Amino acid sequence: MKNQHLKYKNKKAKKVTEKNGLPPGSIYYIGNPNDNPSQITIVSYSKDEFSEIKTLLVEDCFAEKDSCNVNWINIDGIHNTDNIEKIGLHYKLHPLLLEDIVNTEQRPKLEEYDNALFLTLKLLSYNTNTQEIDSEHVSFVLTGNTLISFQENNADSFELLRKRIEAGKGTIRAKGTDYLLYSLLDVVVDNYFSIIENISETIENLEEELFENPNQSSLQTIQNNKKDFLILRKAIYPLRESIYKLQNNDSNLIKESTAKYFRDVYDHTIQIIENIENYRDINLGLKDIYLSSISLKMNRIMQVLTIISTIFIPLTFIVGLYGMNFDFMPELHWRYGYFFVWGVIVVVTISLTIAFKRKKWF
Amino acid sequence: MKNQHLKYKNKKAKKVTEKNGLPPGSIYYIGNPNDNPSQITIVSYSKDEFSEIKTLLVEDCFAEKDSCNVNWINIDGIHNTDNIEKIGLHYKLHPLLLEDIVNTEQRPKLEEYDNALFLTLKLLSYNTNTQEIDSEHVSFVLTGNTLISFQENNADSFELLRKRIEAGKGTIRAKGTDYLLYSLLDVVVDNYFSIIENISETIENLEEELFENPNQSSLQTIQNNKKDFLILRKAIYPLRESIYKLQNNDSNLIKESTAKYFRDVYDHTIQIIENIENYRDINLGLKDIYLSSISLKMNRIMQVLTIISTIFIPLTFIVGLYGMNFDFMPELHWRYGYFFVWGVIVVVTISLTIAFKRKKWF
Amino acid sequence: MKNQHLKYKNKKAKKVTEKNGLPPGSIYYIGNPNDNPSQITIVSYSKDEFSEIKTLLVEDCFAEKDSCNVNWINIDGIHNTDNIEKIGLHYKLHPLLLEDIVNTEQRPKLEEYDNALFLTLKLLSYNTNTQEIDSEHVSFVLTGNTLISFQENNADSFELLRKRIEAGKGTIRAKGTDYLLYSLLDVVVDNYFSIIENISETIENLEEELFENPNQSSLQTIQNNKKDFLILRKAIYPLRESIYKLQNNDSNLIKESTAKYFRDVYDHTIQIIENIENYRDINLGLKDIYLSSISLKMNRIMQVLTIISTIFIPLTFIVGLYGMNFDFMPELHWRYGYFFVWGVIVVVTISLTIAFKRKKWF
Amino acid sequence: MKNQHLKYKNKKAKKVTEKNGLPPGSIYYIGNPNDNPSQITIVSYSKDEFSEIKTLLVEDCFAEKDSCNVNWINIDGIHNTDNIEKIGLHYKLHPLLLEDIVNTEQRPKLEEYDNALFLTLKLLSYNTNTQEIDSEHVSFVLTGNTLISFQENNADSFELLRKRIEAGKGTIRAKGTDYLLYSLLDVVVDNYFSIIENISETIENLEEELFENPNQSSLQTIQNNKKDFLILRKAIYPLRESIYKLQNNDSNLIKESTAKYFRDVYDHTIQIIENIENYRDINLGLKDIYLSSISLKMNRIMQVLTIISTIFIPLTFIVGLYGMNFDFMPELHWRYGYFFVWGVIVVVTISLTIAFKRKKWF
Amino acid sequence: MKNQHLKYKNKKAKKVTEKNGLPPGSIYYIGNPNDNPSQITIVSYSKDEFSEIKTLLVEDCFAEKDSCNVNWINIDGIHNTDNIEKIGLHYKLHPLLLEDIVNTEQRPKLEEYDNALFLTLKLLSYNTNTQEIDSEHVSFVLTGNTLISFQENNADSFELLRKRIEAGKGTIRAKGTDYLLYSLLDVVVDNYFSIIENISETIENLEEELFENPNQSSLQTIQNNKKDFLILRKAIYPLRESIYKLQNNDSNLIKESTAKYFRDVYDHTIQIIENIENYRDINLGLKDIYLSSISLKMNRIMQVLTIISTIFIPLTFIVGLYGMNFDFMPELHWRYGYFFVWGVIVVVTISLTIAFKRKKWF
Repeated sequence: MKNQHLKYKNKKAKKVTEKNGLPPGSIYYIGNPNDNPSQITIVSYSKDEFSEIKTLLVEDCFAEKDSCNVNWINIDGIHNTDNIEKIGLHYKLHPLLLEDIVNTEQRPKLEEYDNALFLTLKLLSYNTNTQEIDSEHVSFVLTGNTLISFQENNADSFELLRKRIEAGKGTIRAKGTDYLLYSLLDVVVDNYFSIIENISETIENLEEELFENPNQSSLQTIQNNKKDFLILRKAIYPLRESIYKLQNNDSNLIKESTAKYFRDVYDHTIQIIENIENYRDINLGLKDIYLSSISLKMNRIMQVLTIISTIFIPLTFIVGLYGMNFDFMPELHWRYGYFFVWGVIVVVTISLTIAFKRKKWF
Repeated sequence: MKNQHLKYKNKKAKKVTEKNGLPPGSIYYIGNPNDNPSQITIVSYSKDEFSEIKTLLVEDCFAEKDSCNVNWINIDGIHNTDNIEKIGLHYKLHPLLLEDIVNTEQRPKLEEYDNALFLTLKLLSYNTNTQEIDSEHVSFVLTGNTLISFQENNADSFELLRKRIEAGKGTIRAKGTDYLLYSLLDVVVDNYFSIIENISETIENLEEELFENPNQSSLQTIQNNKKDFLILRKAIYPLRESIYKLQNNDSNLIKESTAKYFRDVYDHTIQIIENIENYRDINLGLKDIYLSSISLKMNRIMQVLTIISTIFIPLTFIVGLYGMNFDFMPELHWRYGYFFVWGVIVVVTISLTIAFKRKKWF
Repeated sequence: MKNQHLKYKNKKAKKVTEKNGLPPGSIYYIGNPNDNPSQITIVSYSKDEFSEIKTLLVEDCFAEKDSCNVNWINIDGIHNTDNIEKIGLHYKLHPLLLEDIVNTEQRPKLEEYDNALFLTLKLLSYNTNTQEIDSEHVSFVLTGNTLISFQENNADSFELLRKRIEAGKGTIRAKGTDYLLYSLLDVVVDNYFSIIENISETIENLEEELFENPNQSSLQTIQNNKKDFLILRKAIYPLRESIYKLQNNDSNLIKESTAKYFRDVYDHTIQIIENIENYRDINLGLKDIYLSSISLKMNRIMQVLTIISTIFIPLTFIVGLYGMNFDFMPELHWRYGYFFVWGVIVVVTISLTIAFKRKKWF
Repeated sequence: MKNQHLKYKNKKAKKVTEKNGLPPGSIYYIGNPNDNPSQITIVSYSKDEFSEIKTLLVEDCFAEKDSCNVNWINIDGIHNTDNIEKIGLHYKLHPLLLEDIVNTEQRPKLEEYDNALFLTLKLLSYNTNTQEIDSEHVSFVLTGNTLISFQENNADSFELLRKRIEAGKGTIRAKGTDYLLYSLLDVVVDNYFSIIENISETIENLEEELFENPNQSSLQTIQNNKKDFLILRKAIYPLRESIYKLQNNDSNLIKESTAKYFRDVYDHTIQIIENIENYRDINLGLKDIYLSSISLKMNRIMQVLTIISTIFIPLTFIVGLYGMNFDFMPELHWRYGYFFVWGVIVVVTISLTIAFKRKKWF
Repeated sequence: MKNQHLKYKNKKAKKVTEKNGLPPGSIYYIGNPNDNPSQITIVSYSKDEFSEIKTLLVEDCFAEKDSCNVNWINIDGIHNTDNIEKIGLHYKLHPLLLEDIVNTEQRPKLEEYDNALFLTLKLLSYNTNTQEIDSEHVSFVLTGNTLISFQENNADSFELLRKRIEAGKGTIRAKGTDYLLYSLLDVVVDNYFSIIENISETIENLEEELFENPNQSSLQTIQNNKKDFLILRKAIYPLRESIYKLQNNDSNLIKESTAKYFRDVYDHTIQIIENIENYRDINLGLKDIYLSSISLKMNRIMQVLTIISTIFIPLTFIVGLYGMNFDFMPELHWRYGYFFVWGVIVVVTISLTIAFKRKKWF
């Protein structure tokens, strides 16, 4: 478990420096290597219409633009930088914006350009196999009546939302691209809640384990939880800030009636942050419980061992006493001397045992 | 005690993610399952009149609306989402507002809508059976001359206030819905004081226990106190913020003369926060005292045991000495050799005991 | 010492909740029970005149009002709520203001009313008998040319100031009620300096004790210091805020020329806060020194005991060796075998002792 | 490794106080002694032209000034204060600005003068030989169409950028001195990423080491990491502030279209700061793991040793028992008494071993 | 070393409360008792002229006032409150200002009066004899073309600056009183750098000591360093604030061209603060290293002692075995039984020693 975390960090961090020496604005993908072609999904809808096209050709995106529907272009896989460049050219996007789409190490942020709103964030998910948090770099570009979403991996996380749009559930079909952006954000933020749930379960199990059977792997779990909280914080704090700006945004890309919804997502991010900070605190408390439990356990063992020695050392003295070779030792010639010594041994053992028991020493 | 806390947390957190995948604005109850019907109490009063109706039918609420009295509709139980929806429809409340009423995981907040003021908060109470803090999700909607209060549980926490209104005590009958809101808030905040009292007692008992007889359950209590403080903070910090906004509110739903009263409740929330932070600090200090006490106790035991060994080991050497089988050992043939050895043993034992006593080693 | 602190806290906290259920604005005294009548002192002065009346009748206060002098009414004992109500009625004070005068748990604050300025604070004093900080609830009401001061206890803390006014020392006789308020504040703040001095002495003695003879009562003192700092912070932080507001106050009750003096008291509160934070830090450091000293002491004892055992265990082996009963053991038949063994024992003992000494193990 | 850090700190700090007593504005170099002459490189370029001159004479810089190209004068080595003074005279730079160029202890800052923009910062690099962070004092002066860069050491860190300009890669040839300043900053900030990568690797290796074989040098590494983070913070926090000011700069030396690029570097500094804080946190966690591991390891050893003693002490008692010299001890005369005792010894040893194993004591 | 710190603190703090009970504005000196007369130095200079008068009569100061030169009056020793009062009268200074000049416990601050600028601060110096920080209370009053400086001790710290003015070094002779104030501040702030250097050396030596030979005096040094940092912070934080105000001052006492110089001193205070915080952090880390080193050392000793016992206890068992008195023990009659036992003893000793060595237990 530990090694995976380490590997994960190392793997990514190494790649950032690969970009050193390149002129700024270069579109250079530094994420996990990926050989699959980028999958493109184009969805157009209005209150009454719905169309969905799945394609591998980026040029298919450019045809739809004139229709009065909401256009949602979703790109799964950002390793194909050619596609990104073509979209950038067609929608007249700034080179720095394109660079941020493919820079998987970019922290979440909201940027306003003359003709577009750019939001990049982390889609986190708890990988139950590796017991670590998987982080996916996701970006949204809102330009005119088109929203383009870029996902790092090929697994499409917004499939469910597309189904809901197709089925016409809720009010989304009646609303614009800004409401679509809100719905996508809502999906992302809901995922954070799932992760917190997973961590909270880990912490609860850990707490029981600590009181019952503390072992060194517990400390490792506590340290790993700590790292998970760092990953979460790194993703959610700048996102909160971005959503706050979105909610107070005065560009005409976000309608005023939608601001209330962004405020709602904003509230959720605050709730997530509160949860993170609380569980972080509890996790820190577990460290103290671990240290105390482990030392208590150790001390108890030593105590029992020492008690055993302490009982036998006086006995050894007694039998040593009658092993002496003095010419004149009256007890040695007593008829029941030997049995008398056994009596003393039994009395000493029992009284020491009772004394220690009474003092609750074991 | 521990398990209850764990269960409590787990139970709730699980349910938040049940909502994932639902369109936003869905009224979906995620609190504890509840089979009882929601109890509705409708109170109308002015300086001279007072009427109270208890009903199970939500439609009864809608008749009163035209009277010039203050109308207070209280709903005990928010699991019946149909009722909530009907009220929402009749009073033209925003879907997000209705969603927050039934979302028991929603953090306290104040929201202003065009026609209504919405305040949601946590009513905390100390459950002496389970020794944990019970949290109830409570919401207030202030619209026109009507105040609607929603309580998660069927136990009515505002019964006493209703009695006071009926009896005409204080100035409440002469004032409007804003003063009623203040009175309800005052009840909620007074409950927080009771909880702090309970925790302060736990901490005082714990402190005495720690100096007299520290044991591992103490550490568990310290950790549980820490969690209680987290629950309290989660409830009171956003509430303070909401009351602050209420006090500076410029909507015509809150009269200026009532603002002074909200400032008073605001002061109380600050006092509660100060108490929480102080007891948190003391609780943290107890952890150090526990760790130090437990290690002191352990060390003392080991010390006594080691002293016993240290006294007997030289004695065992002495008796071993005269157990040797040399042909020529003059002492062995002395008349009182054996008694001489006993003398040596007694002298060594007494002098070691005195030496250790003098150094205050036991 | 510890119990007193605990009692002190418990006693007060319990009473706050007695007020739960009462309508807001109720004048309900929750401080220590007190059977003495409230002592009232009425002082009137101008540059040339000075009069002082001591009375038990609150009505005597109301006669003076028309004179052009500064009127200072001082009430010792706020348990007599009738008096408070009568004063409130005569000077037209808001019910919430009166409630705060008798609520001994009220935190320090400054409130501006239309016709009055209200300042409540804590007068702290170090009780050398019980070795704890006594906290007294004190309030000032500034209305027109009258200043009313309310003290919780019968012991009059402002006696000295009254003497100074009577003697005409300083410039106070030439100034107004605002300067009187400043002079009273100055007395209160000076008391805080005395307390910090007391605590600093405790900490210095503790520090020496810790390096010389640490014991578990030291830890208790450290924890009690911590609580004292909490009491101080609770009193001084909100007071600083209040004085800051007073200094920037634009009501005509505070003259501009007096603001400079309030700025001076404000500076003193900051100095007190700096001292508190510094001593808190030092106190925390003492905890580490305690823990380290106590464990060092313990370890040294164990080390000495173990060294004694370690020297005797090889000796016991040697004498055991020649206690064996083999038919053929040449040393046993040596003429000086026994003395040879003694020689070995002495050599082993001395060399082990020297070895341990050289390594500075004892 | 430790000593190098210490030396590094000491060496520099000592020299700051050498300046005490000098009048302010004195150009006094306090960095590492350096005997090499300062190397000067003058680069002039526009979209179509590129010229590069390497010289040792500072006067060569002053000829180029009139050409309409971008002029970049780079000085490697600031110990030659004569050169600095001549440049200051020619470009009319403020004495305090010149003082800051040669004061290698100056913290990063941005200063606006009437005719110039002055930015000083630290170029950090990880020295793999000494395993420490090398800090180089670098300053930029932007005046008219000339940018002057001052580097403390002779090793030119901007060589690569110059090559890129010569090759005409990217858009830099088409842009002005402000974009050149941005490009230089980008090189500096990219270096920080490399350092964080190095530290992150150290921390990961350390973490594995701690779980497998903790030793005291680990603690030293943790303390050294801590110092590295302090060096990084000291360099990056004020730099972030400076870049923020640069981005919002309204002097006509920075074009508006370039501000977007400075915002990008600003984002990078925030990302570096986040990484520093996260790794600091992880490093702190390692300290706890170290302390816990080392004490666990110690305790385990003591436990095994004590178990060995505990098994042999009862055995020694048994054999002592039959070493007694009583006249009447029936077992001594049994035919198989001796073998019986051996049986008892074997049984006791095995049962104690099993008991300890079952309790998982070793 | 410790006692000196304690004495230093105690001595001063006691005296603050001596002032309790005095009317505000009283000029009461609370610093160290001093019997020497106050030494007064009056320096007047312009670009071309320079005069210096040393006197004991305060009246000599008042003659110079009309000349158009810069007048700098320096008073060494503030215990002579008569002098202070006379100066106050002549220059029409506010009583609170005069009180602050002699109140050696006053924290650094800048105050603007109608006709004067008042700056009070602490001049710190490291006393190598007592190994503690000496704090001197210094005040500056800037009024018209006169600057009056008040020093607590008779040792004149500004002697060097006066020499520099006399020699006409730098640009100071051409500038006004504001530049003189800046030069004095520069001297004070340079002293802080010296102190940080001293502490940094102490910390470096301590660090080496801790890794080589930790002892309890190390902990005392760490605690003393902590106190030194508190003294430094108490002096430098409010000074930074004051210099910031000075730099943005809009009174006509500070010329705009001098503001740049104050900004430079302000930068230095920030650098000092950064250094303090960094060394504080390192000092805290040393505490952990100390605790870990001391416990490691202790544990190692115990381990070696226990290993010695563990080797001898089985040997004692073996020799005890052949000390038994059974009638039938074949080994006792073997020809080489005794040497066989010696063989067993040697084998056991060697194999245990090798086993422990291999496990790196000593």
